[in-house]
Amino acid sequence: MMRTNDEILGQFEAALSQMQTPEEPELLYAPIIYSMAGGGKRLRPVLLLIANEAFGGNIDKAMPAALAVEVFHNFTLLHDDIMDNADVRRGKPSVFAKWGENVAILSGDAMLITAYKMLTALDAERLPRVLHIFNDMALEVCEGQQYDMDFESMTVVTVEDYIQMIERKTSALLSGSAMIGATLAGASDDDIKKLYRFATELGLAFQLQDDVLDSFGDEALGKKIGGDILEGKQTYLMVQAMNRASEVEREVLRTTHKNEALSDAEKIATIKALYEKLDVKRAAEQQIELRFERALAVLNTLSIAGERTVRLQEFARNLMGRKK
Amino acid sequence: MMRTNDEILGQFEAALSQMQTPEEPELLYAPIIYSMAGGGKRLRPVLLLIANEAFGGNIDKAMPAALAVEVFHNFTLLHDDIMDNADVRRGKPSVFAKWGENVAILSGDAMLITAYKMLTALDAERLPRVLHIFNDMALEVCEGQQYDMDFESMTVVTVEDYIQMIERKTSALLSGSAMIGATLAGASDDDIKKLYRFATELGLAFQLQDDVLDSFGDEALGKKIGGDILEGKQTYLMVQAMNRASEVEREVLRTTHKNEALSDAEKIATIKALYEKLDVKRAAEQQIELRFERALAVLNTLSIAGERTVRLQEFARNLMGRKK
Repeated sequence: MMRTNDEILGQFEAALSQMQTPEEPELLYAPIIYSMAGGGKRLRPVLLLIANEAFGGNIDKAMPAALAVEVFHNFTLLHDDIMDNADVRRGKPSVFAKWGENVAILSGDAMLITAYKMLTALDAERLPRVLHIFNDMALEVCEGQQYDMDFESMTVVTVEDYIQMIERKTSALLSGSAMIGATLAGASDDDIKKLYRFATELGLAFQLQDDVLDSFGDEALGKKIGGDILEGKQTYLMVQAMNRASEVEREVLRTTHKNEALSDAEKIATIKALYEKLDVKRAAEQQIELRFERALAVLNTLSIAGERTVRLQEFARNLMGRKK
Repeated sequence: MMRTNDEILGQFEAALSQMQTPEEPELLYAPIIYSMAGGGKRLRPVLLLIANEAFGGNIDKAMPAALAVEVFHNFTLLHDDIMDNADVRRGKPSVFAKWGENVAILSGDAMLITAYKMLTALDAERLPRVLHIFNDMALEVCEGQQYDMDFESMTVVTVEDYIQMIERKTSALLSGSAMIGATLAGASDDDIKKLYRFATELGLAFQLQDDVLDSFGDEALGKKIGGDILEGKQTYLMVQAMNRASEVEREVLRTTHKNEALSDAEKIATIKALYEKLDVKRAAEQQIELRFERALAVLNTLSIAGERTVRLQEFARNLMGRKK
């Protein structure tokens, strides 16, 4: 019997709780413990372990890599919070807000090194390939963050550039995790390449859905609407809208978030009205469907028996908040 | 014939000039190229390659590790400059000053990952051990930097704590480099352990000498004197002086650097007079001799023929600015 995804998550959390961190210097290591204990959905390690199991891998042997990708992910959040000047992370003070910038920089560095330290517990035979995938993934995440920061000062971003940015910033860590899990199970190059495509498309669908929900989500579900609009952030909706807008509309899209004459609610309403008019919500939803369907379709082309891909399908649906 | 240390440096610089870095995103990779081209003495990669050659290793096979330690070293400088608010590095604007903090954080992260990327070019057979040494070394450097920052807000630091801090901040990267070089040449565990001691003692001697020269160096040699004193930095001299001082003298040691009634020259003269009175310069010089002699003595205990250790001796003398 294959483990359910919840069982896999449970085993990951158990392994994480065993993770040893030195006690001193306290200001170096306490923020690492704080970050890792901060929760989160553990999407990347779970995907890694599901991919590993789909190809008949041993969960215990893959666990160090699962820990490594989760530590890496939390490292990126820690440093991103400095760059974004973000005080809150998962409902608690960010490391940056709690300990200050220098501690956040240095403990983040120690966290990145700790991720690599986890990898040394893998079988020596698989280590070079995993390290290779891990490094490429890690650099892509940095590239994605840099493009995202670059976009802040750009007026018009092309849809292609935006997609390439989120392929790095969001998809790379998912696709790297899936590839590492499969690599550790001895999957073929062809299957590994397919998992890369599965997770890349899924990551895009997930990020685009996140963009849409930020403007059109259900406030009744406790989701705060309009954060991206108020920050003047480049999102799929904004990028598409700017590309479709008239010169006058562009000016509105560009300046509304800093218009001091408007309340927050008015700013959000103004931009959403333009999004509706320019039909960009529907464009985004079409992209989401396309990417999600592509991701699921890739699973059917894997060399393993169909029933072995069930957990990957469940993971994908669950990530997108869908029952089926 | 063994290569001279200058020949080794030449080969390292040639390899470094071949290092490939992506062009985009420019703000991620240009700071890496800028840092690596900024010069420096390349002490760590040269030590790695000398240790490798002493044990009969192949310089080309060790080169990726030499590049990795140099990239890592420059990464630490890049992030340290943010934490220390340092505008100048090797006579040029620091990355932090030139591109700002966010770029310095993120390109530093990419640099750390790039160091690991270099390591993947090593023979798979040696990779796990090298990675292990590299990770421990990298974490120790972070620990050293954190202790150094901790000391800034402490009044009295013990000599033992100070030594432990520089063992991490300065020695770890030298000892890690020497160990990696020897490991790649297939040296025995016993010899590797001895090289660790050699480089640890040498690093301590080097850092303590740096501390002494900052207060008692020769201005005629172009060295600017008193920087540590004006910053109120914890150095071996200050730590020893605080431990030997009376309550009244401690107050002077503690407060002079922020005494607005004094000129810089007066501040420096005040502290140096106390250093002389408390005889801490001589204490430092004794420590330097002790550590340096210990380092050289370790070389005589290696299992290889004496003539194979000549370049390591030369490296040590050269580092300390000594003819013999």
